[in-house]
Amino acid sequence: MGAKVEKLKVNFKTLEEFKKFKEYGIQELSMLEDLEANMVEDDSESPFYGIYFGDKLVARMSLYQIDAKFDRYFYPPQNYLELWKLEVLADYQGKAFGKALVEFAKSFGLPIKTNPRVQSSGFWEKMGFSKVDYDMERDRGENPLVWYPEGVEPQQ
Amino acid sequence: MGAKVEKLKVNFKTLEEFKKFKEYGIQELSMLEDLEANMVEDDSESPFYGIYFGDKLVARMSLYQIDAKFDRYFYPPQNYLELWKLEVLADYQGKAFGKALVEFAKSFGLPIKTNPRVQSSGFWEKMGFSKVDYDMERDRGENPLVWYPEGVEPQQ
Repeated sequence: MGAKVEKLKVNFKTLEEFKKFKEYGIQELSMLEDLEANMVEDDSESPFYGIYFGDKLVARMSLYQIDAKFDRYFYPPQNYLELWKLEVLADYQGKAFGKALVEFAKSFGLPIKTNPRVQSSGFWEKMGFSKVDYDMERDRGENPLVWYPEGVEPQQ
Repeated sequence: MGAKVEKLKVNFKTLEEFKKFKEYGIQELSMLEDLEANMVEDDSESPFYGIYFGDKLVARMSLYQIDAKFDRYFYPPQNYLELWKLEVLADYQGKAFGKALVEFAKSFGLPIKTNPRVQSSGFWEKMGFSKVDYDMERDRGENPLVWYPEGVEPQQ
């Protein structure tokens, strides 16, 4: 049984659930401030996708499409997805929720770049990601891992 | 007694010491590969600064100067420093080594941007850093904290 991946809406319930994730940061604080100040509407679109277990959010990631003109990772240069804050709550690990999220991201058919916070290279390798040739000016201390769909190659 | 901050050279000893730091990643692997392949000379310059305790490297950070034309954080737009991988080995924390590194970075008189990996906002606040107004297109899930020298303001 595959886990259902849902696009998350910006509302107080979701933002409260985000606080359980380790990578809660300035992005989430900013979403909360915008909602409180009515700068964004309740239930508006967010860049986050998640998996619910019952009515509890137990896994999430953020996806953001980068325009081809900024592409410095893929050849031919093209629109690609940046994936960040992939995280499964500790009590819900080992149930393939992380895998379900990554497979969902791949289903768009675009190349993907991520910068995993923890040394989780085993997981990302199993998901078909590979490391880039590090370029300090471009990568600035990141650990970029990428996924190439059919026909896409590293940018030289 | 202030700790002495040194610019680190690329050599096998330094790269071996880097392995003790949690944030060892693709950047360091790439430095090691370049050294092994003679693509960089032994003892060439690295972007890292560190503090030794005896002959053991116990704290480090990387500093990289970004050109004014790419500046999207400061007003007026100007050259600034990106600081990453600030880390003090667990057994050597509480000795103000982190503070010594950040003060060294400030001594260049340029604005600084960092993206701390852990929620260490208390430390950064004490060091005079403040959070930016989050911009998803620019910040892509990062937690950017910045330090403004006299006369420098946030970019609008």
